[in-house]
Amino acid sequence: MNEARTIKVALLGAGSVGSQVARLLLEHADDFEQRAGARIELIGIAVRDPEAPRDVELPRELLTTDVERLILSADFVVELMGGIEPARGLITRALESGADVVTANKALLAHHGPELFDLAERVGAQLYYEAAVGGAIPIIRPLRENLAGDRIDRILGIVNGTTNYILDRMHTLGDSLEESLRIATELGYAEADPTADIEGHDAQQKAAILASIAFHTHVPVERVHCEGITGVTAAQIAEAERSGHVVKLLAICERIGEAVSARVYPALVPAAHPLASVHGGNNAIFVEAAAAGPLMFYGAGAGGVQTASAVLGDLVSGARRHVLGGPGTGESMDADLPIVDFAEIRTSYQISLAVADEPGVLASIATTFADHGVSVATFEQSPADDEGRATLVIGTHEAAEGALRGLVEALTAIPAVDRVAGVLRVEGVNR
Amino acid sequence: MNEARTIKVALLGAGSVGSQVARLLLEHADDFEQRAGARIELIGIAVRDPEAPRDVELPRELLTTDVERLILSADFVVELMGGIEPARGLITRALESGADVVTANKALLAHHGPELFDLAERVGAQLYYEAAVGGAIPIIRPLRENLAGDRIDRILGIVNGTTNYILDRMHTLGDSLEESLRIATELGYAEADPTADIEGHDAQQKAAILASIAFHTHVPVERVHCEGITGVTAAQIAEAERSGHVVKLLAICERIGEAVSARVYPALVPAAHPLASVHGGNNAIFVEAAAAGPLMFYGAGAGGVQTASAVLGDLVSGARRHVLGGPGTGESMDADLPIVDFAEIRTSYQISLAVADEPGVLASIATTFADHGVSVATFEQSPADDEGRATLVIGTHEAAEGALRGLVEALTAIPAVDRVAGVLRVEGVNR
Repeated sequence: MNEARTIKVALLGAGSVGSQVARLLLEHADDFEQRAGARIELIGIAVRDPEAPRDVELPRELLTTDVERLILSADFVVELMGGIEPARGLITRALESGADVVTANKALLAHHGPELFDLAERVGAQLYYEAAVGGAIPIIRPLRENLAGDRIDRILGIVNGTTNYILDRMHTLGDSLEESLRIATELGYAEADPTADIEGHDAQQKAAILASIAFHTHVPVERVHCEGITGVTAAQIAEAERSGHVVKLLAICERIGEAVSARVYPALVPAAHPLASVHGGNNAIFVEAAAAGPLMFYGAGAGGVQTASAVLGDLVSGARRHVLGGPGTGESMDADLPIVDFAEIRTSYQISLAVADEPGVLASIATTFADHGVSVATFEQSPADDEGRATLVIGTHEAAEGALRGLVEALTAIPAVDRVAGVLRVEGVNR
Repeated sequence: MNEARTIKVALLGAGSVGSQVARLLLEHADDFEQRAGARIELIGIAVRDPEAPRDVELPRELLTTDVERLILSADFVVELMGGIEPARGLITRALESGADVVTANKALLAHHGPELFDLAERVGAQLYYEAAVGGAIPIIRPLRENLAGDRIDRILGIVNGTTNYILDRMHTLGDSLEESLRIATELGYAEADPTADIEGHDAQQKAAILASIAFHTHVPVERVHCEGITGVTAAQIAEAERSGHVVKLLAICERIGEAVSARVYPALVPAAHPLASVHGGNNAIFVEAAAAGPLMFYGAGAGGVQTASAVLGDLVSGARRHVLGGPGTGESMDADLPIVDFAEIRTSYQISLAVADEPGVLASIATTFADHGVSVATFEQSPADDEGRATLVIGTHEAAEGALRGLVEALTAIPAVDRVAGVLRVEGVNR
């Protein structure tokens, strides 16, 4: 162990995660020195406005707007600005200057991961990103290293705390989506503009990252089918409970023969599945591997100090490796499996239809299902209301998304069908 | 990536784990080459008797009894023999010869971990042991690397599948301990001699390993207080349920101020705690860290092919690091915190007493509690049987183990107390 060694750290960004990383680095410098075998020195924090108010008081002399100069003096660059630019350019410059990089930037990795991994490998630098998925939950390193000798068949992830909080409230308190979102915003679980969460884009980026690591195959975020929770109704939640399920927004990564799929949508999960017990704003990632069998990783998926834990894990263990003189593991995207078209994905469905309660409706609906090759497994009709409108909830056997799409179009065209009120897929069952 | 490179692997032992490791190495050689950037070649399997029947058919030409010679030709030695000797001597020789080592040997690590870690660091070799705790569940690497920048406050682990299966049956089916153990043995969950499992020694070794990593402090297995499940009765299980708890055999590693404790005993866990839902032979490790908050790692804790997944994860990711030219992370046991005497550990208790149902008994019991400074929180008396014997179940507030020990002795000395039928501690609550 080289006592005199110092690892110089440049921090980019001092938001909710960055300010916690700075605080912990300053408070626990002695502990980290012992663990890493070198002093981990925070040499500067790049911010847009050094005078802006922050959650955590940071030494004024560390704050700088000269990010370019800061990067060039660093052994490690910790990027916590978020967004594509300028983060992408800065990380590129850091790697090119020989620095190792730690980032929590899921958008950047989902859109530009492969080019950054290639660059890191070319220049012999490390790019760590444990904090990009699941906040404090260890998932990137377990997938990359612990399961390096196994075959990952499926990942079902609750990777967005905001939507899990909202859906959990709808189940446990019977709230509507709007009410639940309103309270999530009040309590700080949802951001002022919750679009990225409730439309599923946050989960979509994480699914792209997880699928790429799990399958050693670049899965572009554009190839991840994405539906958010905005269409989920209190009626669907109640129907799910009646059929022994819980509605969860899932990031799904699946190996299908010699091809792969990644997708995000609200799905029915059997109430006995470990994911069904993940409450509030927590995250959990359920992994099925050929030899290991089912595994689950559970914890807080977001939050400044929680995410800072993951960032510091990368930094301190990375610094130790740095001191010992060797590189890390690098990425391997060599399997290069094809990505299955979403239309070919097969699941079973719970379809809610608003219909006129009149003779012949059932027959025409049943015929339409048969015509599209979608086989009905369960059937429930609620009593008609005063205006003669009834709700049908139809559970299907497994069918392809393409068949489902045709079926939904055809159902919509039946005059007595007011509308297809909702479609939920069933996940977490053995197929 | 060096296309011509080959990593030579010597396997020691071909039991239930070893034979699966051999099979998977042979079957997935191409996949592993892609991931590691080098051919991972199984050069030999050291066994006592090459002609012995095995679960998996292995190429006869790989089997050898000349373990010393095999080790000297290897880049990686995978030790899956178990037990202290000859494993200890062979791993020592392997490290000294410059080979990296992968082992699943919890007994060896619990008793001789520090000397082996020191040797590995001295010679610049790696010692991997993810498979030693939790079977396929990633826990060693998450603790060592993901949480390297955090402070681990507590670990509550269900780390023995046999005892979890037995206790789970007692809860769900109302079986007695004997009946449940008999069925566990029939189904292969328990070994012919289940002593190491049901007396808690297996969990004790794992607790020593987890505590040492979590607290960067050598916690000798002899300092891990250990009680097994042999004293757990169907009545205690029923009492636990009535008070909203589940009985689990826990490996507990705890930071108490600037000192640490590791201990194993059957404990009451609140029914809503994530550990309470861990059924059958599964394992789960619940970790509380200062910044990350609560995390849980769940999966199959044993089984040949599951444990082989963890071994191969170490081997393939280690081989990749080997190819890239650098060392791994090494151990850090530098914190060297004191270990708290078990007598000073404070929990709350559920104490079952068999008593004579006669005047004055309650008064003398209550006085005895007060004399020992143990405060009663709940109290339940079952109706006396035909012989005038009743059962008292007393829940306490927090008290030190030392006080409890004195209390139990004093209770035993009360003439009207037949015996202290059981003591269970409560864990998994915020203190």
